[in-house]
Amino acid sequence: MNVLVTGGSGFLGRHLVPRLLSLGYSVRMLDVSDASWRDPKVQFITSSVADESILNSAVSGCEAVIHLASSVIPKTSNDNPLLDARTNLVGTLKLLDASVNAGVRRFIYASSGGTVYGEPSVACVREDHPTDPICSYGIVKLAVEKYLALYQRLYGLESVSLRISNLYGEHQRHDTGLGVIATFCHKAVTGKTVEIWGDGTVSRDFIYVGDVVDAFAAGLAFEGQNLVANIGSGTSVSLNTILETIEGLTGNEVSKTYLPARAFDVHRTCLDVSLAGQKLGWRPRTSLGEGIERVLEVMARES
Amino acid sequence: MNVLVTGGSGFLGRHLVPRLLSLGYSVRMLDVSDASWRDPKVQFITSSVADESILNSAVSGCEAVIHLASSVIPKTSNDNPLLDARTNLVGTLKLLDASVNAGVRRFIYASSGGTVYGEPSVACVREDHPTDPICSYGIVKLAVEKYLALYQRLYGLESVSLRISNLYGEHQRHDTGLGVIATFCHKAVTGKTVEIWGDGTVSRDFIYVGDVVDAFAAGLAFEGQNLVANIGSGTSVSLNTILETIEGLTGNEVSKTYLPARAFDVHRTCLDVSLAGQKLGWRPRTSLGEGIERVLEVMARES
Repeated sequence: MNVLVTGGSGFLGRHLVPRLLSLGYSVRMLDVSDASWRDPKVQFITSSVADESILNSAVSGCEAVIHLASSVIPKTSNDNPLLDARTNLVGTLKLLDASVNAGVRRFIYASSGGTVYGEPSVACVREDHPTDPICSYGIVKLAVEKYLALYQRLYGLESVSLRISNLYGEHQRHDTGLGVIATFCHKAVTGKTVEIWGDGTVSRDFIYVGDVVDAFAAGLAFEGQNLVANIGSGTSVSLNTILETIEGLTGNEVSKTYLPARAFDVHRTCLDVSLAGQKLGWRPRTSLGEGIERVLEVMARES
Repeated sequence: MNVLVTGGSGFLGRHLVPRLLSLGYSVRMLDVSDASWRDPKVQFITSSVADESILNSAVSGCEAVIHLASSVIPKTSNDNPLLDARTNLVGTLKLLDASVNAGVRRFIYASSGGTVYGEPSVACVREDHPTDPICSYGIVKLAVEKYLALYQRLYGLESVSLRISNLYGEHQRHDTGLGVIATFCHKAVTGKTVEIWGDGTVSRDFIYVGDVVDAFAAGLAFEGQNLVANIGSGTSVSLNTILETIEGLTGNEVSKTYLPARAFDVHRTCLDVSLAGQKLGWRPRTSLGEGIERVLEVMARES
C-alpha cells in the first residue's frame, strides 16, 4: 500500500517512516523542509501542503495519507490565528479535496490531545470532554477533525484522528521550547541549569514516540469509518518527577532554577486512552523511565 | 454607540437595522450586496468581509460589530467546504483582527442552532450538547465561536454568539429554499402546490425574526465577557402543523404534494433557550400563529 506522509521530516516522521517501511508500506513524503535523513526507498517531495499545484501529484496512487504537517506550534499559534487558519485549516482542506479526487481510502490525522480540550474539568479527559481550546492550534485541529467526519459522510473517506498528548523521544529537538523532556535531558547531559516555570508541580501526560508510531500503524489497519481517539500514557507526571527520573538515571543532580509560573500553563493534563484500547487494540507500552533512558543514551552518544 | 452590521442587506438585517436605529445606535452597514431599502441615517459600505483593504475603515470608530454576513447557506456549504472556510472563517478572522486593532469592545455573532449540533441526541438541545456538524456551514460557525472565546482571552474583545434556530418573518425570500414558512405562505397566497419532502412530520424550532432582533439588542447590552446562547422558540413544530396553521389563517385548503424524504434532513430540531433567559433576560414572545399571520399579511399586500 502506498502512503503519503506530510510533515514527515520532523521528529515524529523520523520514527514513523522507518516503521512504515518495515511494515511493508511504500512511503512518499511531502514536507516543506528537507529531512535530516535520507532513505532511497522513500520518495521525497519538498513542498508546502498549502501549495495546490503539487497536491494532486503528491497523493496520486496513494491509498492512505498520514497528515503530520503543521506550520505552527501551540505556543506561537496565537501570535497569528489568521495565518494558522489559512495555512493549516485551508491547507488541510486542499489536501482532503486532492485525496478524495485521487481515490485515497484512509486519512490519518495527527490531532492534539494537549490543546483541543482547553482547561480540563476532570482528572483524566475522555474524547467526549468539552472542547474549548485556548489556542488557535487547538481550534484548527478540532475543525479539521470535524471536516474529516464530514468527508467520510460525503465521500466515504475513512479517517482516524489521533489526539496525541505530550510527545517525547530520541532525536526530539531540545531548542524549540516544545519538548520539555528533550530540553531537560539536554541540560542534564551538558551540565547546564534547567529552568522551571512555577514550582515544578505542573504535570503532563507524556507519551513515548515509539508508542505513538504504534498508534499510527494501528490507525492504518483500523476497520472503521471515522474515529477520534486519545493517544497518551493515561497518567500525568510532574516536571519535578521528570527531573528526579533524569537524576536517577544519570546518577547526577541536575542544577535547577525555579521561575514565576506562566499564566497560560494548564496545571495538569491527562488523557483517558481506553477508547484507543477498544477500537485500535492500542496501549502505551513504554514506561517513562525506559523512554527517558533512550533519550539520554542517544544524547550522550551524539554530544 | 456606533455599530457595524455586516451582511445587513439580508432578511435579518432588514429587521435588525431599524430596531438598532430606534434604540439610538448609529449604524454602519457592510454588505457585498446593496440593500433593497435605504435609510439616510445608515452609512452603507458595499464590500465583502474577506476584502482586507476595506475592513480597517469599516470598523473604525465602532464600539460594537454585529456579524451576520455569510457567503454560503447550510445546504450549499458542502458543495465547496474549501471556499466556505476561505471566505467565512478566514474572512471572519480578518474582521476580528480589524476589530481588535480598532478598539471594538463587543462582537455579536450570528451562529447557527440548526447546524452546530449535528444530529441531536436529546429532544431539546442545550448549549453543552455535543457539536458534530454535518455541514461545512456548521463547522465554520463553531470554529468562529471558539475564536471569539480566544479573542476575549487574548485581547479582551467581549462576544456573544447567538445560535439561532429556523428564522422566519416578513420579507424573507420564498425562492431560495431556505425559509420553509416563507415558501409555504407564498404558495398558499398564490394558489400553488406546496411540495413536502417526506410525510410532513419533520419538525423544526421556528423563531420569529422580531424575537431574534430582541436577542441581538440584548446581546449589545449584555454585561459579560463571552456568551454562547441558543435563540429559538424552545418548541418544535412539524411541517404539517405549519400548513394547518396557514390553512386556518387563510381559510383555504393548501394544495400539497408529498415527495420522498431527503437523506440529509434531521427529523426534529428543538433548542433549549433557558440560558438566553438567564443571561440575556431574553425569551421568545411571538407565537407561531402571530408570526405566520404577519408573514401572510405582508405577502397579501405585496402580491
